Amino acid sequence: MIDFSEWFHNILEEAEIIDSRYPIKGMNVWLPYGFQLRKHALEILRNILDRDHQETLFPLLIPEDQLEKESVHVKGFEDEVYWITHGGLTRLNKKLALRPTSETAMYPMFSLWIRSHTDLPLKIYQIVNTFRYETKHTRPLIRVREITTFKEAHTVHETMEEAEEQVQEAIRLYKEFFDTLSIPYIITKRPPWDKFPGSDYTIAFDTLLPDGKTLQIATVHNLGQTFSKTFDIKFETPTGEHEYAYQTCYGLSDRVIASIIAVHGDESGLRLPPEVAPYQIIIVPIIFKEEAEEVMKACERIKKRLEDAGFRVKLDDRDIRAGRKYYEWEMKGAPLRIEIGPRDLKKNMIVLARRDTKEKIEIKTENLEEEIDKILHDITNTLREEAWTKMQKNIRTATNLKEAKEIIKEKKGIISFPWCGDEECGKSIEEKIRVDILGITEAEKKSSCINCGKEAEYKAFLAKTY
Amino acid sequence: MIDFSEWFHNILEEAEIIDSRYPIKGMNVWLPYGFQLRKHALEILRNILDRDHQETLFPLLIPEDQLEKESVHVKGFEDEVYWITHGGLTRLNKKLALRPTSETAMYPMFSLWIRSHTDLPLKIYQIVNTFRYETKHTRPLIRVREITTFKEAHTVHETMEEAEEQVQEAIRLYKEFFDTLSIPYIITKRPPWDKFPGSDYTIAFDTLLPDGKTLQIATVHNLGQTFSKTFDIKFETPTGEHEYAYQTCYGLSDRVIASIIAVHGDESGLRLPPEVAPYQIIIVPIIFKEEAEEVMKACERIKKRLEDAGFRVKLDDRDIRAGRKYYEWEMKGAPLRIEIGPRDLKKNMIVLARRDTKEKIEIKTENLEEEIDKILHDITNTLREEAWTKMQKNIRTATNLKEAKEIIKEKKGIISFPWCGDEECGKSIEEKIRVDILGITEAEKKSSCINCGKEAEYKAFLAKTY
Repeated sequence: MIDFSEWFHNILEEAEIIDSRYPIKGMNVWLPYGFQLRKHALEILRNILDRDHQETLFPLLIPEDQLEKESVHVKGFEDEVYWITHGGLTRLNKKLALRPTSETAMYPMFSLWIRSHTDLPLKIYQIVNTFRYETKHTRPLIRVREITTFKEAHTVHETMEEAEEQVQEAIRLYKEFFDTLSIPYIITKRPPWDKFPGSDYTIAFDTLLPDGKTLQIATVHNLGQTFSKTFDIKFETPTGEHEYAYQTCYGLSDRVIASIIAVHGDESGLRLPPEVAPYQIIIVPIIFKEEAEEVMKACERIKKRLEDAGFRVKLDDRDIRAGRKYYEWEMKGAPLRIEIGPRDLKKNMIVLARRDTKEKIEIKTENLEEEIDKILHDITNTLREEAWTKMQKNIRTATNLKEAKEIIKEKKGIISFPWCGDEECGKSIEEKIRVDILGITEAEKKSSCINCGKEAEYKAFLAKTY
Repeated sequence: MIDFSEWFHNILEEAEIIDSRYPIKGMNVWLPYGFQLRKHALEILRNILDRDHQETLFPLLIPEDQLEKESVHVKGFEDEVYWITHGGLTRLNKKLALRPTSETAMYPMFSLWIRSHTDLPLKIYQIVNTFRYETKHTRPLIRVREITTFKEAHTVHETMEEAEEQVQEAIRLYKEFFDTLSIPYIITKRPPWDKFPGSDYTIAFDTLLPDGKTLQIATVHNLGQTFSKTFDIKFETPTGEHEYAYQTCYGLSDRVIASIIAVHGDESGLRLPPEVAPYQIIIVPIIFKEEAEEVMKACERIKKRLEDAGFRVKLDDRDIRAGRKYYEWEMKGAPLRIEIGPRDLKKNMIVLARRDTKEKIEIKTENLEEEIDKILHDITNTLREEAWTKMQKNIRTATNLKEAKEIIKEKKGIISFPWCGDEECGKSIEEKIRVDILGITEAEKKSSCINCGKEAEYKAFLAKTY
């Protein structure tokens, strides 16, 4: 088995996703190919959010007094905030923080914007860079100091019920997003000691990486009235009273791109879902001396047809061996390759090579567009099913602590077990097994807590995490 | 005449482009409507650049030693750079700068990427936020401390000739961009004392605002070998020698949005070019009690038809008077309004109201899509011609210093005059008239310098500038 960490580092470089040689630890350069992958993922995300959220853009910098207003919140971030102390050669009167997240940048403005129940609900989002002074080992796209792609949505509501409903809505939106990317996920409520600082509770999406560790890929927070009270976000009700609003926020990051790469990749490199692949189809001319011109013309024709049908196509006409092109585009994860040679032309056929299954398929050039559309959909489905199957195979049930410990040691992955829900008991489990409780869902049947033996209220999940 | 400064500030707020109440001076919030305007402008820009540039994304932060490597360059920015000194509670070993521009972030990477002449030309760009600790009076979109929309392109070439050609190419690209936005411009070479720090020379695009001051809206720099020598960007030539590369960079910013607003706006508010308007067409139902349902259905139908034809359409079905809707959408600059009432339905006609000319036009619903397409093109052209005419009327020739002084005092705008090209003489002109020399172009005919009387090598332009 390949070492995942090494594989991941190498593929980012070889496939030209990220250059991690930038002279600040934990800050990386998006290379053109990686940038296009990121761009297509963000297009999907925007299409989903734009249905009923509005995109905005808030400043990066937050004045010290605003950042520190919500004491629980700032406690959660104080070790990680970058501070600006000087503008030019002048010492600033008030320190400025680089946003670690934007609650404290946005909510003072919300307080100005919201006056009446008719201003609600408010649903906005932004996609920005955020900063965390990570002291742990950094890793491109997974643990970084500049999160270059931080999507944060923030909503404001009249009642707790509406906020709860928005949490459910956010979960639906994220499901749709990850389903489009063929990324499997497990949705749990984080244990109270691991919720977002300042929130009532946190729901998280985690996926499983090939090394058996989980990666948090999205979170949804119900903020209740904590921030609205701190930042004075009040509205006038239809009956003329003034009430503090209810808020939610939900976000995801560069880790989405990390999971696309890690979950679908194989020993030959990336396998990109067609929806996000910079090129969905690579055309490789198979050229012999005599018929070179004819083949090139046919390639151009096919390219034009596919582009007109809305596909992202690259004709690789470099003067290198076809085999090297195959190798490169397999490594870069292009979902489909078309090979066109003189023999195929004569037969009015072309050869397709699928990246996911490595199958080769001969089709008539006639129905090219429809056939390819079908195959690309099939690739998305195949990647999704494979990924879900692999994750589900690695979710195991433990009935006692010894068993849980053994699974973690031998098989890794995610372990589920019955849990009472008591914080002290939970922390004692974490200590005994030496892994974190990822989160909980409702118990499905009557059973006893794996640790204390009391009646289990929850099904809990634990795993080694990134 | 309305005071421009006041008009500009008010319209940003009323039309919901920018909220300038963010608690840091010079840093502002993009509101949803403004964000869409910005988004469409960036789409146009990306479409132009993506033809032969590749989009990338570099880190925001630059280590102190990299920023200070190019001494002329850093001199130009040292008063304006924000410095990070702490990560969490820890003092950093090395200070980190917020990019004021990205030469010193990118070029150390270029030095790693470029080995051979086959790696050239390299043409990349990014659209990011940059920071300048402005000490002058700030103004949203015009002079800010967080430039939220900084497009910077950077290219690397084998020869000086290729770099020169790229400068011309960049000028062509920017012309196309501003032409699409109907923004008029004057293109000059900046005087040597006003060029980009570290460049060989700077070509600038300026436009004229209603108050008679010019606004720099884009610059193109030929960097020669200055940075390639500092950052060791060398390539192997076909004959095996190692040479320093030649570089250019060119950029534009939030000021593009400022100029769309300022150049086209009138006493009723914004007049947005259709290419960038968040909504190109507003449909307002004219409802009387009996036929309300029928009218609304017709509005929905028309909306669907126009959306299918690719237009951005909003059906304003709010329960307020039609007059208030007209007022609001005129203020927000929507290029075209459609009014649909029961009488129009019977006649199979609809009424269009153009925002630019305030004309009303009756057309048959039959050819709706084509007619509207034509009118939107005509709006773009009308805005462009109006704006160019207004700017050209305000470019005046001065034959002596007294005349120049008088024009500046009474009419403002741009003044052209013959100039010898000598730096000392140029600075003496600036001092005597108390405005800056914007730039120069080649002299068109034989004449004498306005100041020293020597033969004029250039036609120079001066203006009060932002």
